[in-house]
Amino acid sequence: QWMMLDWKPKRNDVHVDPFGIGRIVQDGLVFRQNFPIRSYEIGADRTASIETFMNHLQETALNHVKSAGLLGDGFGSTPEMTKRNLIWVVTKMQVVIDRYPTWGDVVQVDTWVSASGKNGMRRDWIVRDSATGEILTRASSVWVMMNKVTRRLSKIPEEVRGEIEPYFLSYDPVVEEDGRKLTKLDDKTADFVRSGLTPRWSDLDINQHVNNVKYLGWILESAPLSILESYELASMTLEYRRECGKDSMLQSLTAVSAADIGHLGRSGGVECQHLLRLENGAEIVRGRTEWRPKHANNLGTMGELPEENA
Amino acid sequence: QWMMLDWKPKRNDVHVDPFGIGRIVQDGLVFRQNFPIRSYEIGADRTASIETFMNHLQETALNHVKSAGLLGDGFGSTPEMTKRNLIWVVTKMQVVIDRYPTWGDVVQVDTWVSASGKNGMRRDWIVRDSATGEILTRASSVWVMMNKVTRRLSKIPEEVRGEIEPYFLSYDPVVEEDGRKLTKLDDKTADFVRSGLTPRWSDLDINQHVNNVKYLGWILESAPLSILESYELASMTLEYRRECGKDSMLQSLTAVSAADIGHLGRSGGVECQHLLRLENGAEIVRGRTEWRPKHANNLGTMGELPEENA
Repeated sequence: QWMMLDWKPKRNDVHVDPFGIGRIVQDGLVFRQNFPIRSYEIGADRTASIETFMNHLQETALNHVKSAGLLGDGFGSTPEMTKRNLIWVVTKMQVVIDRYPTWGDVVQVDTWVSASGKNGMRRDWIVRDSATGEILTRASSVWVMMNKVTRRLSKIPEEVRGEIEPYFLSYDPVVEEDGRKLTKLDDKTADFVRSGLTPRWSDLDINQHVNNVKYLGWILESAPLSILESYELASMTLEYRRECGKDSMLQSLTAVSAADIGHLGRSGGVECQHLLRLENGAEIVRGRTEWRPKHANNLGTMGELPEENA
Repeated sequence: QWMMLDWKPKRNDVHVDPFGIGRIVQDGLVFRQNFPIRSYEIGADRTASIETFMNHLQETALNHVKSAGLLGDGFGSTPEMTKRNLIWVVTKMQVVIDRYPTWGDVVQVDTWVSASGKNGMRRDWIVRDSATGEILTRASSVWVMMNKVTRRLSKIPEEVRGEIEPYFLSYDPVVEEDGRKLTKLDDKTADFVRSGLTPRWSDLDINQHVNNVKYLGWILESAPLSILESYELASMTLEYRRECGKDSMLQSLTAVSAADIGHLGRSGGVECQHLLRLENGAEIVRGRTEWRPKHANNLGTMGELPEENA
């Protein structure tokens, strides 16, 4: 269904966006921005990290709101939200990664919003190779409103609905909703536990809270190196349960299962369950990740890289 | 002396670089690239982090070599270096930060290289606000060659010198060399020690080594939160002593002195000494940082940000 979004590779696209701020396309309802992949955004495999994708999703979401003239407090809230101390918080995120780009590639990110139930908003993204139009990543997320003073969830006030509804598209989600329940891991069911995780000053966003992308990094800290070295992340589902502040101390739990991955459509994949929790046990994020073997023609997974010109 | 680099603010500059890859200016000897500051590159103060600056320095250095047609192995080595298994390693880095940009600002980075002694190369950078030309940051670094198989330092072979010397400029360093010896901290002289630091998979570069920018992050992990909250980094000097691999376990040591900062030119600054070492005691990086109070009109340093429109 998301194919209805018409992709036309045009060199001109980028010339009208010289500062890399992005722009509104498709009758003002889809926001598009290009990102050159930087050397510091790639890892040992020479490909962009999942965190890089997540950063680009965050940036386009914010620039979309800004371009629509709806930026109230400078970080995603509309003017009517700002008046009421409301902020957006993400409750669910699903991401499917078909291919990771490398240094020098330019990715093109499209994003738009839709209604989600009565009091939520869905935001979808499609990330393409800007040179070919090939889809690299699809992501779908659900957001609700929270009062930043009381920290309680809020209905969408009518005045806010009036601001945002004109931007809603009625597309289906770009990632089919994964209805499988996410397991709640504990010390017994987890295969790997990493304790003592604390936010660094540089992990805090302007609300002095830990950024969603950082959560993902912590989740992956309990994934065993053998998986990170030999597999690449193919998809993930994250459910955000509660927020985490600057004084929190966290634990990251991971359980690995090689079975039950028929839906990956090929052999050799790995599925993991994850839990990020406070040391007192309160859940922060539940997650599920699916991994596929790195391409056989990829670089070696251990030790030095082979010489190309030697 | 670095003022001899002629800065002309021209909107046209960016139009000829639509993909944000950067380009050669000034008779082919200075490389220039613009970077829009992203939402994920700013922190709790709404300003870009020092890591963001360092990332931009790395990216422009690599793109400079690439634009000059000298990229042998895809990550900074020239063809003659690649033949000989030689890579560049940084031995010293000095950075002075006058002002930190914020989300949406576009910074313009100029970089060039010079000789440094008989077997080294100096690389300098000037980072400006692209809208005004105001200098935000200056950085100067010294690099030598290492054989990536034996991990020993190497002289610059004649064939490599032939490749790179035509690019050398004879400018003075943009940061005056800080000749003061860097203290070697130990458990007695350090005020703060942070142990158990280990590289994550995502911290490794394509040579499976820890990236220089990551070192800086670790150094700052032992700086007390009271400094990070109330001061901003004004300058730093880092000496890289040995490399650190993916299985290393590190300790970060910091000593704080409020005195002896006459050269900051104003009262209220703080100076820190740093050491990053392996758990067995071997030195990785020695450093000195200088901090100035955050501007009085800055946002609060603790708790929630004030409401702007409330």
